[in-house]
Amino acid sequence: MSLQNMTKTELSAFRDEAKKQYEDFKALGLKLDMSRGKPCKEQLDLSLPMADILNSSSSYIDADGIDVRNYGFLTGISEAKQLFADLLGVDPSMVIVGGNSSLTLMYDSVARAMQFGVYGSEKPWCKYDKVKFLCPVPGYDRHFGVTETFGVEMINIPMSPTGPDMDMIEKLVSEDETIKGIWCVPMYSNPDGYTYSDETVKRFAALKPAAKDFRIFWDNAYCVHHLKDDHDSLLNIFDEAKKCGNEDMIFEFASTSKITFPGAGVAVLVASENNVQQITKLLGMQNISYDKVNQLRHVRYFKNADGVRAYMEKHKAILAPKFDMVIDILTKQLGGLDILTWNVPKGGYFISVNTLNGCAKEVARLCKEGGVVLTGAGATYPYKKDPDDKNIRLSPSYPSLDDLAKAMELFCICVKLASAEKLLAE
Amino acid sequence: MSLQNMTKTELSAFRDEAKKQYEDFKALGLKLDMSRGKPCKEQLDLSLPMADILNSSSSYIDADGIDVRNYGFLTGISEAKQLFADLLGVDPSMVIVGGNSSLTLMYDSVARAMQFGVYGSEKPWCKYDKVKFLCPVPGYDRHFGVTETFGVEMINIPMSPTGPDMDMIEKLVSEDETIKGIWCVPMYSNPDGYTYSDETVKRFAALKPAAKDFRIFWDNAYCVHHLKDDHDSLLNIFDEAKKCGNEDMIFEFASTSKITFPGAGVAVLVASENNVQQITKLLGMQNISYDKVNQLRHVRYFKNADGVRAYMEKHKAILAPKFDMVIDILTKQLGGLDILTWNVPKGGYFISVNTLNGCAKEVARLCKEGGVVLTGAGATYPYKKDPDDKNIRLSPSYPSLDDLAKAMELFCICVKLASAEKLLAE
Repeated sequence: MSLQNMTKTELSAFRDEAKKQYEDFKALGLKLDMSRGKPCKEQLDLSLPMADILNSSSSYIDADGIDVRNYGFLTGISEAKQLFADLLGVDPSMVIVGGNSSLTLMYDSVARAMQFGVYGSEKPWCKYDKVKFLCPVPGYDRHFGVTETFGVEMINIPMSPTGPDMDMIEKLVSEDETIKGIWCVPMYSNPDGYTYSDETVKRFAALKPAAKDFRIFWDNAYCVHHLKDDHDSLLNIFDEAKKCGNEDMIFEFASTSKITFPGAGVAVLVASENNVQQITKLLGMQNISYDKVNQLRHVRYFKNADGVRAYMEKHKAILAPKFDMVIDILTKQLGGLDILTWNVPKGGYFISVNTLNGCAKEVARLCKEGGVVLTGAGATYPYKKDPDDKNIRLSPSYPSLDDLAKAMELFCICVKLASAEKLLAE
Repeated sequence: MSLQNMTKTELSAFRDEAKKQYEDFKALGLKLDMSRGKPCKEQLDLSLPMADILNSSSSYIDADGIDVRNYGFLTGISEAKQLFADLLGVDPSMVIVGGNSSLTLMYDSVARAMQFGVYGSEKPWCKYDKVKFLCPVPGYDRHFGVTETFGVEMINIPMSPTGPDMDMIEKLVSEDETIKGIWCVPMYSNPDGYTYSDETVKRFAALKPAAKDFRIFWDNAYCVHHLKDDHDSLLNIFDEAKKCGNEDMIFEFASTSKITFPGAGVAVLVASENNVQQITKLLGMQNISYDKVNQLRHVRYFKNADGVRAYMEKHKAILAPKFDMVIDILTKQLGGLDILTWNVPKGGYFISVNTLNGCAKEVARLCKEGGVVLTGAGATYPYKKDPDDKNIRLSPSYPSLDDLAKAMELFCICVKLASAEKLLAE
């Protein structure tokens, strides 16, 4: 029965029951963390054979005859460029293979743009009184953190299952030359798990921004991270952009953080020839080379893009039951109550839920006091300000199935309790 | 016999002989590279056992119980902090363990200072009309590249065997609050191989800059890189700075690039608590964690600072004969001619030589045409401008002893030829 239809008396009884269940849970003294999209130990162990794959002097010589242990080859080894190029459907010359963090590649890209501009900039972004970024919401807190750090004004763009509101984006970028970029997670978006439709990608590729140095930050973090056999697919934005002469408008990012090791994977930046040239020149001042040993380790382990794709099936086998369990518990505990909506993603790392307006912070607080840490409510919005205080990002990957079940039971109780309290207070 | 004392006829004969030798060498079709301080294959192979030291799921758990494969622990694992703290004589809380490149840590430190300021800054450095750095010369080209990229004006400070000219430094920093930093390689300086005297370190530690946010960039790249048993030692600048309340004035950098792998080592930034706090906050926007797997790999391999020091003896055994050979050939070929001076370093990676004024570029050109690439003449000065066109950095580490002998023979011939030509033209 929907809580909206309950009488005050029914609501009070519902609240009291939830309150009792909550106190019982609290007594268990749980200590679980569902705050971040961290792979679990079983996932990390999948990559164990990669550890000692380079084990002799000659094993460090790559296909070009380069000893990867030494200095040089700033933009990465050819084999690694090829591997990522195949995965992402681009030319290897467009790939800069970086260190262990795509976040660093993104931060550095914004930092360079602020200080030096991007290819085609009339002046560095910091020379404008104001620089703005569009931010599809809910979105990834670390993206917003980067632009906030650089004093960039962030404008919320509503998300839908087909991607962000393209009408709004087209209008805004065409009118305002201080809008210099947009953060996108086009496949299995963080946190919604939405994949941009073909039309959305085409409209992105065809954007006509007033700013000649506008950049789409295309964070393809979950490009091979499927949870279902009938998985989503994403149109290749570079193919579309080429048709419109817009290749220079895109910075694409990806990494193996959630393929091999989150702390010790390999990240890439993909961009047009003009961009790669401009970036490489500045990169050469910051670095002599990224860790090519780790690049070669990854290439030798996976061999090719199909190797990566096949390998991701193993991650799916570990993760899918966790996601299924979350959906199952949400359905059983909260179905029909009209106090929570949730997405059922076919990939990625998150389940995005929306409480009644004004309840997300309270649910997160209750969970925390009950022993389960969620991503901070509000974190999925720029400036941590969720205007409706309703979105919560659930990260089912790290806990064991047993722990996850407990955490989700508690979560559902917290949603019931917070919702009932809210409705009673109205 | 000194060329300065030769008659024109004698000089002509000397030149002709050198010219003939040069042409003979050219005919050999050499292709050798002495341009960079790259470790040789034998040095890289020393670290082979490190490769598979992490080879089971449990081996990735560090002393704090952290699975180093996963996200988090931005400033590095405790064990790695301890190892570098012991090596550099500082508290582990002062150590930020980074990725594979100390150059990146330096560039990022300048970038952060420009965009956000450092601890104690009234405003970001980029908000000044002009920011200046002091640059002991000759120095490290990549340092100068970083500051040039950010539009920092660089002021040459003459080097001597005890370090840079401290009178000049003290005067300049006390008078000009736009002087925000100085690049130092205090031990086995690049390229001179000089180690700053105790007095120099004490005077650095006691500086009273007009700029409250002045920083000494203390690039301790060669802190354990000795070539002789009676090696140099460097006073601990943080100990001295503490006595003057100046701990916040120093950013120290080091790495294992020339201990394990140049492309896949571990770098550190060492700074006061105030600095570490300010840096960590911004670093957290740029990164979730550096490669902790590689950090643990290094710690497990070396065990402790003594392990590193013992290990460096193996490098010495490979490098010392190369340095000895260079000095030997210079002495035999050019001794008494008064056309080249050279340093005999007790550590580091370079032998710094000075030609007659106006001959360095020509020597480098002749060498290159003869088949041996040297570091570009001028590279050891800001803006690549050696005012006397005399300094050349020799890097003996990479070539084999045989190749090195050939390269040095050619080098000496080129010095003879260029010097004779110059004196004849006077």
